[in-house]
Amino acid sequence: MPSIFTKIINGEIPCYKIAEDEDNFAFLDINPNSKGHTLCVPKKEVDKLSDLDEESYTKLMAFSRKVGKAIEASVPCKRVGMTVIGLEVPHVHVHLIPLHTMKNATFQYKEKMEPEEFETIAEKIKNNFK
Amino acid sequence: MPSIFTKIINGEIPCYKIAEDEDNFAFLDINPNSKGHTLCVPKKEVDKLSDLDEESYTKLMAFSRKVGKAIEASVPCKRVGMTVIGLEVPHVHVHLIPLHTMKNATFQYKEKMEPEEFETIAEKIKNNFK
Repeated sequence: MPSIFTKIINGEIPCYKIAEDEDNFAFLDINPNSKGHTLCVPKKEVDKLSDLDEESYTKLMAFSRKVGKAIEASVPCKRVGMTVIGLEVPHVHVHLIPLHTMKNATFQYKEKMEPEEFETIAEKIKNNFK
Repeated sequence: MPSIFTKIINGEIPCYKIAEDEDNFAFLDINPNSKGHTLCVPKKEVDKLSDLDEESYTKLMAFSRKVGKAIEASVPCKRVGMTVIGLEVPHVHVHLIPLHTMKNATFQYKEKMEPEEFETIAEKIKNNFK
């Protein structure tokens, strides 16, 4: 069965899309650690980061760098953190998280956001993606 | 003033070293989220991940991939997580963390280890680094 991320990439589940290239796809995390929390996902469905071949890994990291810079240009924060965990969804995903305090990096605290705010932030990040 | 990581890289502060190449250096985190928690640090002292130029970023990520594979081959775990935060030490560092449960990824729980155990784990990871 395709992962929830594959369904998002294929448009079967809606998302607040940020960016896409041939190999990777970025969209807002719907249950964010902080406003602007984004996921970068390879289109190829692979479970673990260490399962990715070198080329796919390098492309995912290069894509995540560009998305991270777009977030930094869009969301006031101290810096953008990057985290790969993957214990819940078995499809590699890089979390890019605007950090204000350490609590934004712990995955213990979640931010409430209305659809309009997701849309506004996604639009800003999208426009800063180069 | 040089960062604590620059002092470790220069040998002014001791560490449990894992690996080193021309641009990057890896050693065990002395206050680990789990046993085998390792830091990968660029030798060039740069504050934020997004401050790294593209080449340095790509090299750090490639180095971290190799160290992550060595950890995975050395420390039984579900997978090796990767996190960049950087709110405490202003010198880019990639955390590579053997994950057993989500708590290992939260930075709220720390593992107690004796020097002998640090040495044993560092030796194992070092021997699996290719």
